[in-house]
Amino acid sequence: MNSQVRKVDITRSGGESVSDAVAVEDPLEIRIGEFPLAVTMRTPGDDEDLVTGFLLTEGVILEPGEVTSIEHLDDSRVVVTLREGIELDMDQFKRNMFVSSSCGVCGKASIEQVEIMARPAKPFKVDQTVVSALTGRLRIAQPTFDETGGLHAAGVYDLTGEPLAVREDVGRHNAVDKAIGASARTQWPLPPSLLVVSGRQSFEIVQKAALAGIGGVVGVSAPSSLAVDLAEKLGMLLVGFARDGDFNVYAGGQAVRRAVGD
Amino acid sequence: MNSQVRKVDITRSGGESVSDAVAVEDPLEIRIGEFPLAVTMRTPGDDEDLVTGFLLTEGVILEPGEVTSIEHLDDSRVVVTLREGIELDMDQFKRNMFVSSSCGVCGKASIEQVEIMARPAKPFKVDQTVVSALTGRLRIAQPTFDETGGLHAAGVYDLTGEPLAVREDVGRHNAVDKAIGASARTQWPLPPSLLVVSGRQSFEIVQKAALAGIGGVVGVSAPSSLAVDLAEKLGMLLVGFARDGDFNVYAGGQAVRRAVGD
Repeated sequence: MNSQVRKVDITRSGGESVSDAVAVEDPLEIRIGEFPLAVTMRTPGDDEDLVTGFLLTEGVILEPGEVTSIEHLDDSRVVVTLREGIELDMDQFKRNMFVSSSCGVCGKASIEQVEIMARPAKPFKVDQTVVSALTGRLRIAQPTFDETGGLHAAGVYDLTGEPLAVREDVGRHNAVDKAIGASARTQWPLPPSLLVVSGRQSFEIVQKAALAGIGGVVGVSAPSSLAVDLAEKLGMLLVGFARDGDFNVYAGGQAVRRAVGD
Repeated sequence: MNSQVRKVDITRSGGESVSDAVAVEDPLEIRIGEFPLAVTMRTPGDDEDLVTGFLLTEGVILEPGEVTSIEHLDDSRVVVTLREGIELDMDQFKRNMFVSSSCGVCGKASIEQVEIMARPAKPFKVDQTVVSALTGRLRIAQPTFDETGGLHAAGVYDLTGEPLAVREDVGRHNAVDKAIGASARTQWPLPPSLLVVSGRQSFEIVQKAALAGIGGVVGVSAPSSLAVDLAEKLGMLLVGFARDGDFNVYAGGQAVRRAVGD
């Protein structure tokens, strides 16, 4: 039992009362100095990873080194201090970034916005056998899910299939931010790597990988149309339904090495 | 094939190229008059349901009748006109509602905020056999998931297990907003009913039910700690892991009738 889990008394459909574990969800406010940037409902723990990853993958900072400190005011509030000389346009964050793009809001504008902010990954090759194994490895590295069934997992893995970091959270975006943040705090720029997720691959998940310079996303579940479009536009690998050794490639299949010498 | 689905060319892990269906994801900006309230990444279709549900379950409006019209500027933007005399404090929506609560931000403050805004449901009883069947009924009513594997579903069901509305979306919050919005546009106040969801029951899902006056939430997956706390505080039924006829009651079990005369 860790702080990500809480015991509750439940009644089963058969009528018996038992104790069950649920994933802890609690708000965290992220401030930059005095400015309240965002509130996220997250699973406590790894808040520094979460905040670093969030700032990176939402384009608030360009590298982890721009953050001088992340301090807790209390369990639900952190204050980020940025390196002297880093100026943020706070007005930019008062509205969703899509709204401020020149052509208004549409899928195309969303993709163009990410294209501007993305950190292009170098072309890479990854063995098919490595891709096949990634979601299984993520599953094994997910201890709290086993207790609660209620947490998403995300991991950053290098091209040999070794994890840089794996994290869990009730929110799938948070799990991604934590895994990317933890990896980026250890090593920056990130080595050639893949983001592996337990949940759906929506536009924002591919966006987060792109802004961290990660060249591909591999997931257990289905990608959305806009995620496919974004991955294609940025030349990223996008793999879905990676289960039991099989997977579907939705974009960037040239990165998958199917045979020796390929 | 409908507008919620798009065909894409994929490569399977074995190397064969095939056509696959992905769920469509595209941004929608919601404006109240001139004011840009929110941008959500949604599956197109049922935008009027989505917007009505969003406004209701986020506490922007108190009843569907406060909306005079919902008009599309284009595929990605809708303008909501409110009934004359309805004044909104737009400053309230420029920041997340949790930030403005008096004690700052914490799980307790979040619950208190919802408690103030919730529409209390009358005490009710629902047969265990009805509860057992709800997630199976939702699954059957989910045509697009079968094609893409990538959509969440939500439905509002009366206490006999009949659906008021069932909707799908790439986002689980959107699916809930659509189902509640569709129900509320047909009948308001809603009759005694339950919200049934394919995804996790997080705090915000229970919040959305509470603000619509729905007395319980039933889901296939796991609830979070804060969802349990909120349901307990509001006297709502919260059922998780409702699969294959079995389920777990996390809060409000007195609403489940286990035998005739119970």
